[in-house]
Amino acid sequence: MATKEPEIITDKNQMRNWSRAMRSQGKTIGLVPTMGYLHEGHLSLVKQSHCHANLTVVSIYVNPGQFSPSEDLSIYPSDFQGDLRKVMSLSKAVDVVFHPHNLYDYKNNFKNNDVNDSKRSESGNAGSGVVSCLEEKGMGHETWVRVERLEKGLCGKSRPVFFRGVATIVSKLFNIVEPDFAFFGKKDYQQFRVIQRMVRDLDFGIEVIGSEIARDEDGLALSSRNVHLSPEEREKVLSMLLILLCYDLHITLMKTEPMAPNVDQSSFLEYAYQIVDQESLEAMEEIKSPVVFCIAAWFGKVRLIDNMEINIMKHFSH
Amino acid sequence: MATKEPEIITDKNQMRNWSRAMRSQGKTIGLVPTMGYLHEGHLSLVKQSHCHANLTVVSIYVNPGQFSPSEDLSIYPSDFQGDLRKVMSLSKAVDVVFHPHNLYDYKNNFKNNDVNDSKRSESGNAGSGVVSCLEEKGMGHETWVRVERLEKGLCGKSRPVFFRGVATIVSKLFNIVEPDFAFFGKKDYQQFRVIQRMVRDLDFGIEVIGSEIARDEDGLALSSRNVHLSPEEREKVLSMLLILLCYDLHITLMKTEPMAPNVDQSSFLEYAYQIVDQESLEAMEEIKSPVVFCIAAWFGKVRLIDNMEINIMKHFSH
Repeated sequence: MATKEPEIITDKNQMRNWSRAMRSQGKTIGLVPTMGYLHEGHLSLVKQSHCHANLTVVSIYVNPGQFSPSEDLSIYPSDFQGDLRKVMSLSKAVDVVFHPHNLYDYKNNFKNNDVNDSKRSESGNAGSGVVSCLEEKGMGHETWVRVERLEKGLCGKSRPVFFRGVATIVSKLFNIVEPDFAFFGKKDYQQFRVIQRMVRDLDFGIEVIGSEIARDEDGLALSSRNVHLSPEEREKVLSMLLILLCYDLHITLMKTEPMAPNVDQSSFLEYAYQIVDQESLEAMEEIKSPVVFCIAAWFGKVRLIDNMEINIMKHFSH
Repeated sequence: MATKEPEIITDKNQMRNWSRAMRSQGKTIGLVPTMGYLHEGHLSLVKQSHCHANLTVVSIYVNPGQFSPSEDLSIYPSDFQGDLRKVMSLSKAVDVVFHPHNLYDYKNNFKNNDVNDSKRSESGNAGSGVVSCLEEKGMGHETWVRVERLEKGLCGKSRPVFFRGVATIVSKLFNIVEPDFAFFGKKDYQQFRVIQRMVRDLDFGIEVIGSEIARDEDGLALSSRNVHLSPEEREKVLSMLLILLCYDLHITLMKTEPMAPNVDQSSFLEYAYQIVDQESLEAMEEIKSPVVFCIAAWFGKVRLIDNMEINIMKHFSH
């Protein structure tokens, strides 16, 4: 069977018009928001969308609003042609690839465009004291969606602009694509819960669906950032996160200490581990509600995360 | 001609379903968001919507999220039956009155509803340090939309939670009603510009239309809060704001000082006046771009605002 060419749309108004035309025909739309450099994890989200919705839109956009100036925006990997090939390999699963150039450039989208925009932007962030790559470049964008409790803990501690940037770009994508369903991987667990809460609190008419973590054969959670690992690093650290996770899980749940895993912890620049409630993401000392074990570690400049949900409480109650 | 009974919808899902059904028939929808206690100013917005859109929704909801605990939420006037009569007096102009009971109660709207919500809410606002009536009551809502520059000046100085609350509730109403057009009075000038900017920055597929200020015969801008003025106060202060506005306007534009207006300034607890750029709301010393003259004053517990846009620059340039 010939692979289907998805329609590539770069203009946001054209994107919205496409969605509205489809919805007026009674079709439902699933959105898979990505930053590109697609891997099997993304493709599993696409497959899920293909099952849930009549039509699937994959957005590919590296969002400067969620990177701080010190983070890895400039080295974030991209391969649009490779992404297209991967999308086409899923026969007929993707209807549109939405690939906008810049979602913060409002020059052509605001009737009363303000010539003072650049001047105002240079005056810096008058808001909450956090700065993203976007603000450094002075785009005139000044509206931010914040999920104030959920954005604070876990990865939010070391990445203060991240979830604000994610919630904002996802709001934008939701308003442009107007989907019925949106799919997020549970690897980025806090992101998934932030978006789910945002959708509830802002009454988006969209169902957020979380997808289980896709892993390599040796257990490492798939991530676009894995490409930065050298072959040696891959071999060395590939399943380290998962091993550590299981080790800590064992201690926590079984109240016994198994043999320490054979892990060279000097590889890590930083290593953080937390057990939190699945909904509130609040740290839990005892497992009374469904929890998630979250781990983050830095390998050189690469920050990797992983997690495990624990839903069965009875078994572990004492 | 018999007046038409508008449909009254209190459930947000029913509201969204109505809108989607209408849009699938190719109808356009105008939204007039109000906090009730309707006056001619609101009705002029309704008439404008009736001209622009096929169908008009008037929302009536006093939003606790935009009041601080020290503000006048408890005495904000309401008269739902009177509002309905006024709406029906505009023959066939209003199709739906959306009158939700509580837009921050998520108990029936979130599958994985979290039993820890109330506990978490009691821990207070972990966010930006500003508190609204909503947070005091511990509703579990934690997502806020902030237009960070525009929310700061003018009324934002004395009302730190106001524009955050407005932007958030308007986002919610936009996501529930999914209108094509939304109508806002220019009396609340900063609010109008905050919403317009939010719609641009978050890519809402909605056209925001600002409506000129509706005034009483003696010039006072119509406001639901005017009802709190005693007959004596009304007589005394009714057009005071406008007089002051004209007086200051005269000095600023003509560079001459006219005879001081006969205004008993002891009536005011506070009085603030500013000339700002129409788009950026930044204070202007010279009128180089379209500006707006904004004034705010407190009469007892009642805070009234008024403003005038000046669009013609040539005439005043030196």
